[in-house]
Amino acid sequence: MTRAELINQIKKKKSFLCVGLDTDIRKMPAHLLSSGDPIFEFNKQIIDATADYCVAYKPNLAFYEAEGSMGLESLQKTIEYIPKEIFTIADAKRGDIGNTSSLYARAFFEKMNFDSITVAPYMGEDSVVPFMAYDGKWVILLALTSNKGSKDFQDLDINGRSSKLFEEVLKTSRKWGTSENLMYVVGATKAEKLRAIRKIVPDHFLLVPGVGAQGGSLEEVAKFGMNHDCGLLVNSSRGIIYASSGYDFAIKAGEEAKKLQQEMEQYLDVYL
Amino acid sequence: MTRAELINQIKKKKSFLCVGLDTDIRKMPAHLLSSGDPIFEFNKQIIDATADYCVAYKPNLAFYEAEGSMGLESLQKTIEYIPKEIFTIADAKRGDIGNTSSLYARAFFEKMNFDSITVAPYMGEDSVVPFMAYDGKWVILLALTSNKGSKDFQDLDINGRSSKLFEEVLKTSRKWGTSENLMYVVGATKAEKLRAIRKIVPDHFLLVPGVGAQGGSLEEVAKFGMNHDCGLLVNSSRGIIYASSGYDFAIKAGEEAKKLQQEMEQYLDVYL
Repeated sequence: MTRAELINQIKKKKSFLCVGLDTDIRKMPAHLLSSGDPIFEFNKQIIDATADYCVAYKPNLAFYEAEGSMGLESLQKTIEYIPKEIFTIADAKRGDIGNTSSLYARAFFEKMNFDSITVAPYMGEDSVVPFMAYDGKWVILLALTSNKGSKDFQDLDINGRSSKLFEEVLKTSRKWGTSENLMYVVGATKAEKLRAIRKIVPDHFLLVPGVGAQGGSLEEVAKFGMNHDCGLLVNSSRGIIYASSGYDFAIKAGEEAKKLQQEMEQYLDVYL
Repeated sequence: MTRAELINQIKKKKSFLCVGLDTDIRKMPAHLLSSGDPIFEFNKQIIDATADYCVAYKPNLAFYEAEGSMGLESLQKTIEYIPKEIFTIADAKRGDIGNTSSLYARAFFEKMNFDSITVAPYMGEDSVVPFMAYDGKWVILLALTSNKGSKDFQDLDINGRSSKLFEEVLKTSRKWGTSENLMYVVGATKAEKLRAIRKIVPDHFLLVPGVGAQGGSLEEVAKFGMNHDCGLLVNSSRGIIYASSGYDFAIKAGEEAKKLQQEMEQYLDVYL
């Protein structure tokens, strides 16, 4: 998907919501377990209920891999089921030497037909650029993550650069691609950090986890993270897909997605 | 597998060789393509030919994922076929927030029964420790990789620590586990770096890629990387598994593995 197509979706739906499909067979409503493929059945109903309110879906690969090759078949069916105009993100956090990253790219972009994949930066340029060799496909590079452990290395001060490591990752990697094929994972929900990040990458889209269950404020993110094209995808997983554990799980998921979309619509009106 | 069991294997076989199963359907001998499961058939013959000379096998997940769910079935059969006394490494370079890393651990340690997995450090402690919750299972954390891009971030000087980032990763992460459940990927083949690394982690096993096709010297690695328990697993992938592309591919693979084992035997005699 091109940047223009993504921006178009955002304007049309007045939403920059990404729904995280962290589908866990142990957390889904019991009545689905008797279906032939409970993971796909759950995802299908979630997609039907939320597709009007979101512009992206982000399956987390770990949840599917934990179910073995059956889980990957459920994932494949899910990707095929997602409407073509909605952006898809393989939250896989891959990254390896060049020839290996090329194979991961083949797996996610050719076999599974995702629009994008999250990639870890530790191994540097040749571990990232093979994912950019596909027209209309995107790398979403980890810059600043939202977990506690993000402080261990990402916040270290780099000598002679007046940067923290995550800022150095932004400064170095922005040369590897363009705002047409490279986004960043930014788990920041604080004004100060979002401002610093927008100084380094004013044009790139940011994928922001950590709003909702992980406690961040959507308004802060919109106020300090939005750029002239919106430039944000804000993810919510558990708050939407596990809004109810009963027969009404999809209805409740749709309601939660709609609430977030309506809040986003306000911010798009005010800050864009 | 416990550390004592691994060391026992090394002493018994006089080898610290790890064979990388980077099995690419496009590179394997043509006569295998008509078998029902070419990837497994290739691996089976490679394992039969090399099991006497190596102490570990390291399938690279990208090669299997690139073939979709069929590839993962080939991988599962491969893991089951590897003799139980040989250490298995899922070269997967995973790492995500805690609950997600727990699911990857379930996938690799429970579903697939690997002994260990390679993990990327960028997301910090809570992305790594869930893999250490299993008795007899190991994390192999990326410290210094052997690719060109390793210079982009791993070699950055950290302010106030007189460390490069990869050294900081070693110093910080060694507190997360012990030498009984934590190893490091160290793509160093130079004396200077190996000495510096051994000062920080004298007891831990190091998994060293980059000998052979990637150009490192096995003798340097043995001389400056070995500790009182050997403490090394040295990987060779392409140099062994693609030693020949004909009907004799397994015989040639066995010969290459034996050559490396014999060289390793010398170094074990001299440096251990």
